[in-house]
Amino acid sequence: MEGVDYLADERKKAGFDVDEMKIVWAGSRHDFELTDRISKLVANDPGFSKEGRTMLPRKELFKNTLRKAAYAWKQIIELRLSQEEATMLRRYVDEPAFTDLHWGMFIPALKGQGTDKQQEKWLPLAYKMQIIGCYAQTELGHGSNVQGLETTATFDPQTDEFVIHSPTLTSSKWWPGGLGKVSTHAVVYARLITDGKDYGVNGFIVQLRSLEDHKPLPGVTVGDIGMKFGNGAYNSMDNGVLSFDHVRIPRDQMLMRVSQVTKEGKYVQSDIPRQLLYGTMVYVRQSIVADASVAMSRAVCIATRYSAVRRQFGSQNGGQETQVIDYKTQQNRLFPLLASAYAFRFVGEWLKWLYTDVNQRLAANDFSTLPEAHACTAGLKSLTTSATADGIEECRKLCGGHGYLCSSGLPELFAVYVPACTYEGDNVVLQLQVARFLMKTISQLGTGKKPVGTVSYMGRIEHLMQCRSDVKQAEDWLKPSAVLEAFEARSARMSVACAKNLSKFENQEEGFAELAADLVEAAVAHCQLIVVSKYIEKLQQNIPGKGVKQQLEVLCGIYSLFLLHKHQGDFLGTGHITSKQGSLANDQLRALYSQLRPNAISLVDAFNYTDHYLDSILGRYDGNVYPKLYEAAWKDPLNKSDIADGFHEYIRPLLKQQLRTAKL
Amino acid sequence: MEGVDYLADERKKAGFDVDEMKIVWAGSRHDFELTDRISKLVANDPGFSKEGRTMLPRKELFKNTLRKAAYAWKQIIELRLSQEEATMLRRYVDEPAFTDLHWGMFIPALKGQGTDKQQEKWLPLAYKMQIIGCYAQTELGHGSNVQGLETTATFDPQTDEFVIHSPTLTSSKWWPGGLGKVSTHAVVYARLITDGKDYGVNGFIVQLRSLEDHKPLPGVTVGDIGMKFGNGAYNSMDNGVLSFDHVRIPRDQMLMRVSQVTKEGKYVQSDIPRQLLYGTMVYVRQSIVADASVAMSRAVCIATRYSAVRRQFGSQNGGQETQVIDYKTQQNRLFPLLASAYAFRFVGEWLKWLYTDVNQRLAANDFSTLPEAHACTAGLKSLTTSATADGIEECRKLCGGHGYLCSSGLPELFAVYVPACTYEGDNVVLQLQVARFLMKTISQLGTGKKPVGTVSYMGRIEHLMQCRSDVKQAEDWLKPSAVLEAFEARSARMSVACAKNLSKFENQEEGFAELAADLVEAAVAHCQLIVVSKYIEKLQQNIPGKGVKQQLEVLCGIYSLFLLHKHQGDFLGTGHITSKQGSLANDQLRALYSQLRPNAISLVDAFNYTDHYLDSILGRYDGNVYPKLYEAAWKDPLNKSDIADGFHEYIRPLLKQQLRTAKL
Repeated sequence: MEGVDYLADERKKAGFDVDEMKIVWAGSRHDFELTDRISKLVANDPGFSKEGRTMLPRKELFKNTLRKAAYAWKQIIELRLSQEEATMLRRYVDEPAFTDLHWGMFIPALKGQGTDKQQEKWLPLAYKMQIIGCYAQTELGHGSNVQGLETTATFDPQTDEFVIHSPTLTSSKWWPGGLGKVSTHAVVYARLITDGKDYGVNGFIVQLRSLEDHKPLPGVTVGDIGMKFGNGAYNSMDNGVLSFDHVRIPRDQMLMRVSQVTKEGKYVQSDIPRQLLYGTMVYVRQSIVADASVAMSRAVCIATRYSAVRRQFGSQNGGQETQVIDYKTQQNRLFPLLASAYAFRFVGEWLKWLYTDVNQRLAANDFSTLPEAHACTAGLKSLTTSATADGIEECRKLCGGHGYLCSSGLPELFAVYVPACTYEGDNVVLQLQVARFLMKTISQLGTGKKPVGTVSYMGRIEHLMQCRSDVKQAEDWLKPSAVLEAFEARSARMSVACAKNLSKFENQEEGFAELAADLVEAAVAHCQLIVVSKYIEKLQQNIPGKGVKQQLEVLCGIYSLFLLHKHQGDFLGTGHITSKQGSLANDQLRALYSQLRPNAISLVDAFNYTDHYLDSILGRYDGNVYPKLYEAAWKDPLNKSDIADGFHEYIRPLLKQQLRTAKL
Repeated sequence: MEGVDYLADERKKAGFDVDEMKIVWAGSRHDFELTDRISKLVANDPGFSKEGRTMLPRKELFKNTLRKAAYAWKQIIELRLSQEEATMLRRYVDEPAFTDLHWGMFIPALKGQGTDKQQEKWLPLAYKMQIIGCYAQTELGHGSNVQGLETTATFDPQTDEFVIHSPTLTSSKWWPGGLGKVSTHAVVYARLITDGKDYGVNGFIVQLRSLEDHKPLPGVTVGDIGMKFGNGAYNSMDNGVLSFDHVRIPRDQMLMRVSQVTKEGKYVQSDIPRQLLYGTMVYVRQSIVADASVAMSRAVCIATRYSAVRRQFGSQNGGQETQVIDYKTQQNRLFPLLASAYAFRFVGEWLKWLYTDVNQRLAANDFSTLPEAHACTAGLKSLTTSATADGIEECRKLCGGHGYLCSSGLPELFAVYVPACTYEGDNVVLQLQVARFLMKTISQLGTGKKPVGTVSYMGRIEHLMQCRSDVKQAEDWLKPSAVLEAFEARSARMSVACAKNLSKFENQEEGFAELAADLVEAAVAHCQLIVVSKYIEKLQQNIPGKGVKQQLEVLCGIYSLFLLHKHQGDFLGTGHITSKQGSLANDQLRALYSQLRPNAISLVDAFNYTDHYLDSILGRYDGNVYPKLYEAAWKDPLNKSDIADGFHEYIRPLLKQQLRTAKL
């Protein structure tokens, strides 16, 4: 029955123009066409097949990833792909590899921290992949606290060299992707010591392996740190361990854009403002938010399609059972995640704009918006990655038992995704940074310093502390103004409550430590407000296409009212809404689920993912789930023979009561 | 530095008698001694080593599991272990295997559903493992809805046989553990058809493989369903697919305790009440709750120990950084999970008592408590497994980046544990059953039928609908009566609200479907009340040992106040507590964290887990984490050579710009 579309009836139900929605999702017609073309190019090329990925032993998996990376590069060259297309191709190959770090961290570090001269020397080599680089920051004993790194780079004026050294076991570099088995070079972060003085952490370009035979250079100990969560997942990446025994590098391999060491060993700050480095941080975090919307939408796409295929209970008179997507309990778990995918997409789009804005200001030496941009990207990174990690696992559970099979794609998606909660800033540590910014904002209210950007609502603090929701019936919750005010009042009041409690402590830092859990909650409330408000702003734009805007409004309602219900304690506790109004929000939420239901399949079709990219039998576009699950089972290595390997040694003696003499 | 206890200082801080706590945790001195002895026996036997488990390819992993299972059985025989000891030994071998299903499902099914004659024939074979059996119920298209199974067993009076047949692809048995490659027999659930009539689902003993050469018998198609979530995890189990092409079995292989088919093909019900089967369900679910406390405590033990070892930030004047366990954000995530482990332990203990009680009543033909017992075991299975799955992943995140390594033990623990949320009743479906029972209970209030057991508080409904919490200061939340009343009022009011909303629907079933999400929330509130109240009951017992009871009181306070804070929306929305009282609960919670802190390590020591059982470098008893992580890394297959497999084919051509001619 190949070629039959088992979800055709679902697709017919859509009350909006799916093709237009695809463009909204992609961000622009250009982006749609680009992603559509490249994702299909990858999907149709057997060189990028994902077949059997979760069954491969580590070594074979890794070797196959090396092959794919080389093959991808070859295609990029032969097809003369642009940089944009090349990046997209790597994304759709969809397998963590050393190239991610080479292009995503090593090269940006050279560009951001290297002098023009250093860039002239190193970038051409890196662009052609004549050298392969990684980003060696984290150490075995030091993650979040970069200032605590132990690796040293001690300047030796005698030879005009730095001596890179790992003084302790815990100073071993640990985790950098691409480091273990592939990279020839690394940007190594180490404490700069010159003239007997420690000037803190700086980056250095260090060659690790021979460019001829790939052997580690003298003094360099390097290897892989071992298996990680999941079957295939991140095990295709050689996250590495690295330690140095007095390895010498020329002075000019210190990345010197922001500070230099002279031939004489003198430490000099350049006139380049340090804040420039924050631009990169904003960039990296906005791309993490964009990735969150991608990961969430993949999981939701799989769970939504399978929920329409799967039937369970509710059969009457021998008819078909009910599609599980028709159960309110399923909708109540699935639809808010679908709405979150869209919400994260739009806030990610806005962050892209913010990055441009910040960069323009930096170029004009305007650092005024930097703290706000820093706090808001930190908070949104934390919020969206946590919600996405949980959301993927929820989608897996929504697929019942079959979601536990690797062939569902969801275990791998989860295992590949969860590190996002930890890398580039642990999610809780980041919310504490947001909270610190919020407390500072509040302390400055009334000083004449007007809060800007995402905290500008704090400028209306007096109103927000007193106002009461005027919702009288469920439909009132469809008004953006009602929703926005509720989220603003909740966030403002939680922050003010924290600030009040903080003021009771003599020592502010002690208070901050003691109240950390409350502060995190206030920060989360603020970040949820940002997502809701950016979604509402998006809806004020002109959005073409029959029914498209209406669908987006339904999703926006679901996203915000679901949060309102989930965090009802905050909303009730801070007193902007009454228990009755909370319950009306819940009624409206249920009504929105019914509106969404007929459009669900088309809303996930709008993500425009190929079956190759989803790599999930449950999420197949055509819904032909059961025959394909059955087929896939027989490919397991255990099914190569009828009789299990080990039968003669271990099962037969058991059945035949001959264990006493068996070799076990 | 072997032999040094890096956590010794932590252990010195304990304000209670750890040895006595071990006995409380184990349940009795007997249970403590048994688990202590057997867990050490397994830990010290190299035959049960877990070394390299997450790195093995599927076939090798599976073969090694077969070896361990045979070896375990040999040890059980040679050491003449009792049944209790044998069960314990299998638990501490700690690797999912076909034996779990043979002992845990196949044999109990024979005992529960077989006639005395059938038991006489089959049990001795099974007890000696001359046959190996599994439990073949779930089908590719049918999970939760047992009544929807499609496999048929049609009686043929001509030959006095049943014909077992899989009429469709979706009727293939799918998931049963031990089925794929090992079991020689299965209890197969199929629709009993005789005389042209379908009598619903019944169990049948069916031989699948030859007892000589282990080949599948004619008409039997059987195999493994493929890779599942995680590296080692459940991939040591041969979850299987099975279909029948008109396989014939003698009539007396229908399990006939409850109903029979005569030689003439007549369907007859026995006088054994069907309710007896519910006893087994209560048993299985109580053991799942007990397992939840074990899994949660393992994860918590690892995260707690590592949180005391790991230091990050807060270094002053070059001193050591702060132990992460001292951060309130860490405590606020970790300590409620530690408290949950104890809470689930005690509610599991109570369920064991309930099982005995139910069985005694069943034996006396008293079915009166069955609906309540059924609802409460269903709800507690759902509540504890969901909380534990989430808790394990939270513990993994609490270990930062290193928690993502397989050597932390946490990825495997998660992957092995999560199916508990789905098997033996999907957790959401189960809460809907609880909700149905609650709605029925409420509808019968005032009819003179007094609610019993865990719903007896509903008998005080008038009081609970009106009462207001009298908490005036934070310490008032230490009073069990204050906590209990809050949880009772919240649960009662949520149920009553649902009942009121339901009554607005003309069609009750439609109303139930529409309000399903609210009903689930009411059911969860009820189940949380059960856990809290059973913990409070436990504390009313005499508990010996210096400081032991005090620690348990602290944990009880943390468990309940954390829930109160997390679900503040319920508590405020139903109006028993005020926002101010909610905030006092939070203050008290923080104070309890500080009381717990010095005892944290000793409270996880009380679980008495061996390093073998934990199988986690981060959770090592001696806290010697970093050197062991470093050591373990080098064992990865990728580190067998300095130069990666694939260097010559894929990396060198890249570096040397020779891709054009490379074979990729």
